[in-house]
Amino acid sequence: MTTDLWTVLEETFDPARQAHAETVFTIGNGYLATRGACEECYPGERRATFVHGVFDAAPVVFTELANAPDWLPLSVYVDGERFALDCGTVHDYRRALDLRSGALTRAVRWESPGGRAARITFERCTSLADEHLLLLRCRVVPEFAGTLEFRAALHGATDNEGLAHWRRLAQGRAGDAVYLHSRTRTSGIDLACAMRVITHGAPELGREFWDAENAPTLVVRLAAEPGREAVVEKLVAVYTSRDVEAARTVPVAVECAQACRGWDAAYPAHAAAWAEEWARTDVVVEGDDEVQLALRFNLFQLLVAAPRRDERVNIGAKTLSGFGYRGHAFWDTEIFMLPLFIFTAPHIARNLLSYRYHTLAAARRKALAGGYAGAQFAWESADTGDEVTPRWVPDSADPAQLVRIWPGDIEIHISADVAYMAHRYWQITGDDAWFVARGAELILDTARFWASRAERHPETGRYEYRDVIGPDEYHDHVDNNHFTNRMARWNLETALQVLEWLQAHAPARAAELLAALELTPATLAHWHDVIARLYLPVTPSGLIEQFTGYFARRDIDLAALEPRTQSAQAIFGIAGANETQVIKQPDVLMLLYLLRDCYTNEAVRANYNYYTPRTDHTYGSSLGPSIQAIMACEVGRVDEAYEHFLRAVRADLRDVRGNAGDGIHGASAGGTWQAVVFGFAGLRVDADGWTVNPRLPGHWTRLAFKFYWRGRQVVIDLPGQQAAGGRQQAAGTGASPERGILS
Amino acid sequence: MTTDLWTVLEETFDPARQAHAETVFTIGNGYLATRGACEECYPGERRATFVHGVFDAAPVVFTELANAPDWLPLSVYVDGERFALDCGTVHDYRRALDLRSGALTRAVRWESPGGRAARITFERCTSLADEHLLLLRCRVVPEFAGTLEFRAALHGATDNEGLAHWRRLAQGRAGDAVYLHSRTRTSGIDLACAMRVITHGAPELGREFWDAENAPTLVVRLAAEPGREAVVEKLVAVYTSRDVEAARTVPVAVECAQACRGWDAAYPAHAAAWAEEWARTDVVVEGDDEVQLALRFNLFQLLVAAPRRDERVNIGAKTLSGFGYRGHAFWDTEIFMLPLFIFTAPHIARNLLSYRYHTLAAARRKALAGGYAGAQFAWESADTGDEVTPRWVPDSADPAQLVRIWPGDIEIHISADVAYMAHRYWQITGDDAWFVARGAELILDTARFWASRAERHPETGRYEYRDVIGPDEYHDHVDNNHFTNRMARWNLETALQVLEWLQAHAPARAAELLAALELTPATLAHWHDVIARLYLPVTPSGLIEQFTGYFARRDIDLAALEPRTQSAQAIFGIAGANETQVIKQPDVLMLLYLLRDCYTNEAVRANYNYYTPRTDHTYGSSLGPSIQAIMACEVGRVDEAYEHFLRAVRADLRDVRGNAGDGIHGASAGGTWQAVVFGFAGLRVDADGWTVNPRLPGHWTRLAFKFYWRGRQVVIDLPGQQAAGGRQQAAGTGASPERGILS
Repeated sequence: MTTDLWTVLEETFDPARQAHAETVFTIGNGYLATRGACEECYPGERRATFVHGVFDAAPVVFTELANAPDWLPLSVYVDGERFALDCGTVHDYRRALDLRSGALTRAVRWESPGGRAARITFERCTSLADEHLLLLRCRVVPEFAGTLEFRAALHGATDNEGLAHWRRLAQGRAGDAVYLHSRTRTSGIDLACAMRVITHGAPELGREFWDAENAPTLVVRLAAEPGREAVVEKLVAVYTSRDVEAARTVPVAVECAQACRGWDAAYPAHAAAWAEEWARTDVVVEGDDEVQLALRFNLFQLLVAAPRRDERVNIGAKTLSGFGYRGHAFWDTEIFMLPLFIFTAPHIARNLLSYRYHTLAAARRKALAGGYAGAQFAWESADTGDEVTPRWVPDSADPAQLVRIWPGDIEIHISADVAYMAHRYWQITGDDAWFVARGAELILDTARFWASRAERHPETGRYEYRDVIGPDEYHDHVDNNHFTNRMARWNLETALQVLEWLQAHAPARAAELLAALELTPATLAHWHDVIARLYLPVTPSGLIEQFTGYFARRDIDLAALEPRTQSAQAIFGIAGANETQVIKQPDVLMLLYLLRDCYTNEAVRANYNYYTPRTDHTYGSSLGPSIQAIMACEVGRVDEAYEHFLRAVRADLRDVRGNAGDGIHGASAGGTWQAVVFGFAGLRVDADGWTVNPRLPGHWTRLAFKFYWRGRQVVIDLPGQQAAGGRQQAAGTGASPERGILS
Repeated sequence: MTTDLWTVLEETFDPARQAHAETVFTIGNGYLATRGACEECYPGERRATFVHGVFDAAPVVFTELANAPDWLPLSVYVDGERFALDCGTVHDYRRALDLRSGALTRAVRWESPGGRAARITFERCTSLADEHLLLLRCRVVPEFAGTLEFRAALHGATDNEGLAHWRRLAQGRAGDAVYLHSRTRTSGIDLACAMRVITHGAPELGREFWDAENAPTLVVRLAAEPGREAVVEKLVAVYTSRDVEAARTVPVAVECAQACRGWDAAYPAHAAAWAEEWARTDVVVEGDDEVQLALRFNLFQLLVAAPRRDERVNIGAKTLSGFGYRGHAFWDTEIFMLPLFIFTAPHIARNLLSYRYHTLAAARRKALAGGYAGAQFAWESADTGDEVTPRWVPDSADPAQLVRIWPGDIEIHISADVAYMAHRYWQITGDDAWFVARGAELILDTARFWASRAERHPETGRYEYRDVIGPDEYHDHVDNNHFTNRMARWNLETALQVLEWLQAHAPARAAELLAALELTPATLAHWHDVIARLYLPVTPSGLIEQFTGYFARRDIDLAALEPRTQSAQAIFGIAGANETQVIKQPDVLMLLYLLRDCYTNEAVRANYNYYTPRTDHTYGSSLGPSIQAIMACEVGRVDEAYEHFLRAVRADLRDVRGNAGDGIHGASAGGTWQAVVFGFAGLRVDADGWTVNPRLPGHWTRLAFKFYWRGRQVVIDLPGQQAAGGRQQAAGTGASPERGILS
């Protein structure tokens, strides 16, 4: 699928693999994203546009991003014959996503069943300069004389895999623009689409407006002359009642579509905006073309989904690129995606963390409903932040049976994950204003939750977190998941430090929070008690038991099951896998990664050696490989690290798990950046400075990237091991260089 | 809502009550039915067309009748202004359903916001002569000079309350017809709609075809001249791949639409077909106009849903008129609707019972899955006959919680109900051919189920049916529901008689069934044993305990709770109601009704007196009132009977339960016919003859109806009590009169 190192290329159209290609060819601008479905429709497609924050109620999953009215449809008729790739003869097909500019191009020479031929090129982009503006251009070079007809429509009757979310409110014409006004059925969000069609290159023979219900269509006919290029542009604007007052959505969208002077006029600002993004974000890998392109693809797909002007939305587990997980956000955002943004686009990281701040009320509701204090973040979170994890889902084997889904009840570590990344954002950016106003409260109120959730063992006096699920979801209803317990302690300890810092640097805010969160001396004393007596057993070698009783579970030789084609959970069953030591992702290694400074190299090695062979790297969690790669680097096993890293970086482009059609694996994508930066480059950063400790794969000849550290951009440019003649290190501090070029 | 005694009339359009009006104004032809939504669309409408047998998968409810592509849309523009009842000024609005002809007419004088006025009349019918043909006519008499525009569309993007079932396959033009070809997403049923638009009365100024995706639209413009009527007819044909090969649906539909010469040409055959229906079915009630019209309305709605040419479909609990119960069939068909058809349209009754025959394989699967022999019919049944009762549904109070729905597991009486009506059909019609080929097997194989399902009590040696739900669903998980036990015994006894009859009259078939159903001497001996020892306790007075322990449950004075606005179950809660003697419908009285000859008048009186005050007549089951009315007649309480009967006959027209918008209460509708014929007229019929024993409400001056008895039509024409000067009786036998006129 590659040519140059910025272009994802497809050279044949495979109707059976449309869903995968649609995910890969998703484009977007942080306001919305559109899967790479074709302008003309095909059976089996899963076409969709998702607009951030436009949720609507859905059975079982509570709410989901509503597949928006479809702005793409543009049918081409050559002398009356409808262009489609599943009829006639297709020559020189090529679909290319230019990651540098976010433009998707599809070009083909097509001979109609009736024998008319033309070269047809579609281009589309979602403007990064004006996030409401969507551009579509179709260029046709006919090889015959006759007519070309173009039908550009807005389709209101979309659905989410069968569930219809929209009602048509109105449609019509305003000047030369056509609009469609829709409203979500339950949440009542208005969305207006407006479009104009402009043409050039060939004489316009006629133009009609088909005011067909819920599918307003503009039809233009151009003269076809051999060799003369005819161009049609569909200029679309989208506004929702999340952006402007509901009554203004239509006029504002119409105005936006009318203000656009066409592709050539609008494209430069869009391309310039993308150039800025890449100037901050690009990671250069030389000596490994596949990784170079794939890494850029992963970064591109996160940039596409990253809200730049909206702090009331989050990025779903499948970004904005598919129906999977319904647009719900998980810990995936904080632990896997946020580092990229904290280090390369702090304004985006701030928006995402502010989303958590705005959903504190829901987190408090969740804690209260469980009988706890403080803020407990939902395992799956959507518009309000209330828990939207489905509780029961039909069993895939027998839909009459239901399977209980527990994470919404007991996968509680997410509250510490949010606090951790709020703190990390502050440490790396030095954004005291945000931290005082919002971040501190996230850490303090999650600490309240952790203190109230800890159970004091009546005999031993120690505190425990019982009946939880850790990141390794093969094991549920466990006690004292070490990751959870340790992150809880981190949260409580950090809250106390934050309080101290606030009292020194923002005493009014400290007083306000003390009062609002009822942080009485007795409460704080209780926190100290929990910190001191929280159950966190470690063996003398530094080996950590994932949860109480884990070591006693049945030990399986996973290697003996190779070659496998399914997950260990599928092989052993849900209950069966729970009784083994096989894990979906390495809990303990993840903890060591997050709190690296708290653990010795020996402890890292002991846990790496124990958990690695027991992890289902191939079919377990897609979140695992990138972290596994980092920890492999930490123990000096770069070849192993590279192997895990490939699994992550190829996840969607190569569809290694077979479910890329459901959308981009957002956490995996975010993990690839971490694996490169924190793994291969060995970057370690805190409030006091940064160091790099490169351990590049042997065939990499260069690794270069940039990051922001406390408001300043640092450029890292590392040679490969051979060029460097051995291991190199670099470091920076608050007083020192913004460049760490080693050569 | 009434004028004459054949017309259901609406004189104002109430946007807030559209769902109720749409149900009431449903028209159909036994192949499909269309709710009375308007040709132009309104917010809040629940427009739908359901085609028999066109099911598609749906979450939770397994499968549902898919709301078909919409054939209704026809928008009218007067000088460019779109006609709608929610703008401009509405004068002389009138919507009328002519029950005699099945034609729905809507007439209005409308003044546009811009001041143009016109008289606009819409008429529609679904041909009863050619069930694939649907006719829509719009007549406009403008009061201005200018243009009239009509937009006639086929809309493929329908949904079932949010769930989209269709994918567009193709659309286009064939001659002057336009077609839309769709396919259900899961079940893969093709449906083709074709339409033509013809005009007369005013010059056609222009015509366009808008080939808009999934909404092909024909636009015609006519000259408007004050006082000159312009007429537009939309002629639609519908075929599915259940009717013809999938590939032929489009050409066959196009041909059908093209063959139609217009409303005036097609209407007479349709009207003649309806006249035939009414000649068989009408019930004349004089002296009670409300009842006369309402009764005809109930009969009409059953005729609309009755499959005339298809024996692989059944009538859903809400007929074909709404989304309620998803088109699933229950015992409602057999016990409540079938008597009407057995006595007035045996060919329809035979189709419906043949549906059960064709689903025997599914009934055997269900029995086998439960560990039983024979055939156990599904509580809710759709295309295949497999169980489609939802097992868990979201709690209306808290959708995160699920409520377990038990009837699919343990409401087993339906198997006896099916057998009972198969036998009744045979007895009344004398259709030995059908009975030998199909009916006997229904009775024998359900008997096998009953014998295997009976549990022998280890101490007493008696047989019991434990853990069941009877017709009274306020009580679940009960033992020895008397209705269930007694009907099971009837089923076993009748099976033995049927076997004897077959051996005498169709020995080859008898031998075949003995072998196929493994009816060994040991099996038959076991049947005899179950019959002899089945637990069926009756008190000395003839009073029957509804189930073991019922009399010990808490006795509630229901009258003391009046006036109520909700059901007893809503008042006491599901578990709470279960612990009382309050019942949703009278189980025991229903049994006495079905097996009337097995019980003395004294027993009927004792049970009537006990159960009547304990029944939730107003908000319990809509199935109860008609049977209650019959039993009230049996004990001579005609005034009480009339009161219960009114509840049934008004159920949908007056929306007495507030849920008529979900569709017609089919069982209640069928019950109204039984209440009149078996209750007030006191008709009793068996294979040997019939008697009437009239006990008409005092104000009725005449009651007349017809029925078929063993192939011959009998006319009953009864004077009112005053005219008759007292109680009258009539009777007929195999050898005697086909007329029973008393005057």
